[in-house]
Amino acid sequence: MRDRNTVGIISSNDTMPDQPVTATLLISCRDQKGLVAAVSAFLFENDGNIIHADQHTDQEESVFLQRVEWELNGFKVSRSEIADAFAPIAKRFEMDWSIRFSDHTPRIALFVSKLPHCLYDVLARWRMGEFRADIPIVISNHPDHEPVARDFGCDFEHFPITEETKTEQEAAILDLLDSEKIDLLVLARYMQIIGGGLVDRYPNRIINIHHSFLPAFAGARPYHHAHERGVKIIGATAHYVTAELDQGPIIDQDVARVSHRDSVDDLIRKGRDLEKTVFARAIDLHLRNRIVVYGNKTVVFD
Amino acid sequence: MRDRNTVGIISSNDTMPDQPVTATLLISCRDQKGLVAAVSAFLFENDGNIIHADQHTDQEESVFLQRVEWELNGFKVSRSEIADAFAPIAKRFEMDWSIRFSDHTPRIALFVSKLPHCLYDVLARWRMGEFRADIPIVISNHPDHEPVARDFGCDFEHFPITEETKTEQEAAILDLLDSEKIDLLVLARYMQIIGGGLVDRYPNRIINIHHSFLPAFAGARPYHHAHERGVKIIGATAHYVTAELDQGPIIDQDVARVSHRDSVDDLIRKGRDLEKTVFARAIDLHLRNRIVVYGNKTVVFD
Amino acid sequence: MRDRNTVGIISSNDTMPDQPVTATLLISCRDQKGLVAAVSAFLFENDGNIIHADQHTDQEESVFLQRVEWELNGFKVSRSEIADAFAPIAKRFEMDWSIRFSDHTPRIALFVSKLPHCLYDVLARWRMGEFRADIPIVISNHPDHEPVARDFGCDFEHFPITEETKTEQEAAILDLLDSEKIDLLVLARYMQIIGGGLVDRYPNRIINIHHSFLPAFAGARPYHHAHERGVKIIGATAHYVTAELDQGPIIDQDVARVSHRDSVDDLIRKGRDLEKTVFARAIDLHLRNRIVVYGNKTVVFD
Amino acid sequence: MRDRNTVGIISSNDTMPDQPVTATLLISCRDQKGLVAAVSAFLFENDGNIIHADQHTDQEESVFLQRVEWELNGFKVSRSEIADAFAPIAKRFEMDWSIRFSDHTPRIALFVSKLPHCLYDVLARWRMGEFRADIPIVISNHPDHEPVARDFGCDFEHFPITEETKTEQEAAILDLLDSEKIDLLVLARYMQIIGGGLVDRYPNRIINIHHSFLPAFAGARPYHHAHERGVKIIGATAHYVTAELDQGPIIDQDVARVSHRDSVDDLIRKGRDLEKTVFARAIDLHLRNRIVVYGNKTVVFD
Repeated sequence: MRDRNTVGIISSNDTMPDQPVTATLLISCRDQKGLVAAVSAFLFENDGNIIHADQHTDQEESVFLQRVEWELNGFKVSRSEIADAFAPIAKRFEMDWSIRFSDHTPRIALFVSKLPHCLYDVLARWRMGEFRADIPIVISNHPDHEPVARDFGCDFEHFPITEETKTEQEAAILDLLDSEKIDLLVLARYMQIIGGGLVDRYPNRIINIHHSFLPAFAGARPYHHAHERGVKIIGATAHYVTAELDQGPIIDQDVARVSHRDSVDDLIRKGRDLEKTVFARAIDLHLRNRIVVYGNKTVVFD
Repeated sequence: MRDRNTVGIISSNDTMPDQPVTATLLISCRDQKGLVAAVSAFLFENDGNIIHADQHTDQEESVFLQRVEWELNGFKVSRSEIADAFAPIAKRFEMDWSIRFSDHTPRIALFVSKLPHCLYDVLARWRMGEFRADIPIVISNHPDHEPVARDFGCDFEHFPITEETKTEQEAAILDLLDSEKIDLLVLARYMQIIGGGLVDRYPNRIINIHHSFLPAFAGARPYHHAHERGVKIIGATAHYVTAELDQGPIIDQDVARVSHRDSVDDLIRKGRDLEKTVFARAIDLHLRNRIVVYGNKTVVFD
Repeated sequence: MRDRNTVGIISSNDTMPDQPVTATLLISCRDQKGLVAAVSAFLFENDGNIIHADQHTDQEESVFLQRVEWELNGFKVSRSEIADAFAPIAKRFEMDWSIRFSDHTPRIALFVSKLPHCLYDVLARWRMGEFRADIPIVISNHPDHEPVARDFGCDFEHFPITEETKTEQEAAILDLLDSEKIDLLVLARYMQIIGGGLVDRYPNRIINIHHSFLPAFAGARPYHHAHERGVKIIGATAHYVTAELDQGPIIDQDVARVSHRDSVDDLIRKGRDLEKTVFARAIDLHLRNRIVVYGNKTVVFD
Repeated sequence: MRDRNTVGIISSNDTMPDQPVTATLLISCRDQKGLVAAVSAFLFENDGNIIHADQHTDQEESVFLQRVEWELNGFKVSRSEIADAFAPIAKRFEMDWSIRFSDHTPRIALFVSKLPHCLYDVLARWRMGEFRADIPIVISNHPDHEPVARDFGCDFEHFPITEETKTEQEAAILDLLDSEKIDLLVLARYMQIIGGGLVDRYPNRIINIHHSFLPAFAGARPYHHAHERGVKIIGATAHYVTAELDQGPIIDQDVARVSHRDSVDDLIRKGRDLEKTVFARAIDLHLRNRIVVYGNKTVVFD
């Protein structure tokens, strides 16, 4: 691995203005009276300066979801004691909840196969400081893109996969992810179905980009199917990976107009731009703790 | 039926500027050398003043499609003899072809069930002179919207349909369409499956608006399914009706962003605007002879 | 005026499901700690069942804005006493605030000139029950659309305006609006500049639809200017009317792709659909109390 | 400069399927009868196999524009004689015309200042074989991105520019472009106004990306102005550079929705994705000879 400084990586610290460290609380629970009052009183009484607060009530499912972000500086409860201090409130309302700190830098493993456009796009964004994350490693079932990974200062590991070797290779990948302390897997057009072991280990922490507006054209060769069907709009979908192929919670989607003038190759070309943008938006939303999953859906607090 | 003048109908003649009468040739055939040369020579040699010409070659299917529109005024071949004069060229290249004249006013039958937003929108556009067509009749399986139809100066016929009566009612509808000399059927959220008799009688002349971006969410209750799946984009699709439900050639589609904040009712509300716009665009494209169908696809010469 | 029942008007009560009556608080003030806590405590302590809550902090301007909607049923403070009960909180934080009840039906005056597409669209939506409002009157500087207004069950008043008569005619319009107890003016392509008297009397209560994506092509003939400039996208903008032409707070915008194939007439035709949709969305957002204006901007709690 | 093979550059030949060499004729002239007939007869009589043909008539300006692309293989006129063979037709109709061959690889000079997102995007697309071009050199008024350029196998030249040195530096740039035989200049957020010498030397061959939907927010700091104005949509515009700042012929535009939740930084972040996509589309259209400029507009034959 080349030293990062020599390849011109701009760290987050360089590009981000001197932003205060914040804590972010993500909450979901059964809808009840007094939820907002309890959380806001907790923050107010401890002198929390709220930067962002948003909530959503799914009336049909009677589910309440909330995101609150506040500055640690000046907050009366010390960072290590926040969880304990909040626990009684969480218990009273039977909340699913988590707390994140903005100075934690998540570690990403980037998966790729043959098509490199999302790989390049994610690495360039990272190098420019767009993502608050580190990307120590690129993993692929093909050896092709090792030079790209190395150029951007990442390690590269090649795990060729056949039907016979799939189970053992995924076990080896799991070991590597553990040893690298990976928080998030992003599948940049990685053309392998992710096995149950990986999915179970990283629930709502594997982001895939699918090259259609799901649920249309799930599965293989969506641009070919779109061309056959004669659609006038194509799309791309970023979603969390679950056990069922292309069925996980949708994070973001986007579309582009096409016409009879567009061949399959044109759809592929136009689709690449959608894929890159949607994929990057989903990764960024995840890293900024903007997403709460409930049932098979996402709430995106943007 | 109220007299149209009393309800303020603006006829096409009032709003359209004094446009010259044109002929439009729509052609599809196997791709061959010399096609464009032959058609353009035919027009040039007869002093045709071309207003619009567009062609498309589907390289994969090796299909050639063309639309040419020229002024009748000054054209050396008289209107009634154009078909005969062009026939030898058509024969040489084995073309599927048709010719239309811009001073012919197609007659539309407008089908509706309970939801009236597309009904209102089509009738208002027609009254404002947006469509080069006449709409003598509104047909419904429910009696609700007779006053609306009458207000806009249309006849209204109620054909209640049950499983038992479907065949005979569609036969009665067919008779009515024949006697009214209907050229085009537009289904403005008409919630009945169109039987084979009607489809066969009006090939590529029945336009339906489906409230999803097909092929996603074909069939009933697409907004409910879209909400369940947690999509971030909803859509609407205008297509020609074929024997298979929601599988006909797509004419136009459009989409709108939605979020977790949108309930099913919000999707329905936002979707209505998509449906109206896409439906009207498709009707307008058809009336201006801009669409050629081949296989299960459309070429839209816009 | 024709009796509304005979023209098939569907009142809001018919189409809206039996929704509970709600109160909505709209707040803006200088950003301070404890704001959310104070408001949510007020509602919680009085057993308010929150239906929708959203807030926004403009960090640069240090402005806090909030919208909270809750059910009146079960709320411990009676409807007539809510304002008094909330006043101390409002005073403490120096809030600009207002309260609205969902069973109040605002009264709209609809202004139109020659082009009727927005007129038709608004009236049809109203008749279908899309708007929680009444539209007792259509006002125009031309007599043309009286039959349309009457058909939809509205009164129609004709105020021809010349440079000489403008002041007195606007005074007469003001009198009419007063006597009709109008809450909201919507300008459906009304091609007269609104005088200062009207603007002062209805601050942030006059909605205009402008046929460009402002600030591009402010003023007259935007489609012609767009065509001249060769843009690839056209737009429409709904905004509140202020003293400066086309400079008021923007409520909503939308755009559509165009190409060299589109003549000015095509831009006008495609633009009409944008205008209708954007205009209706803005009216609907206003009527559902979703908009807060601050400075020259809107916050839209959608 | 590193050897390109070692940095994994994929040449166009690797990724493009074995496509036949084609000739492309771009024509503009006064609209006249017989134009299409004459051009298509020329191709037909010489056994030209047409791959793509499109034309446009600007009725208002009475201008005719055409693009025809055909296979050289099998064409009876040899490549070097096509221009002479076509000249009489061109003369008869007083055409502005040019002919391009698909196996010519244009040479691009890529200009950048401080912000590297378009730089990365263009270089990564090029490396993946998306552009039919070579990019021998990156030119900048700042030294920052030399490592990026070198990593992708490009030379890098630093031309610091002050008010005093501008004239001489642009002269030096011109010399460099000449010696490098540059065909096309692409300004990837190059924050210097291009002087008249360069504009005159490369008419319709300098592509700039401007970070607003022109003509709104021409000039500096468009995202700041957009935020101030409270727009609900932001955009990006790719255009050819002319003597007047941000006034050249528009090639492509795109937009994205924003809301009150978006700070200036959010607009900048969201805008970056628009800029990259629109810029790359414009470059690609230019390289595929899809654009004809007339007056201050483009016709894009896509």
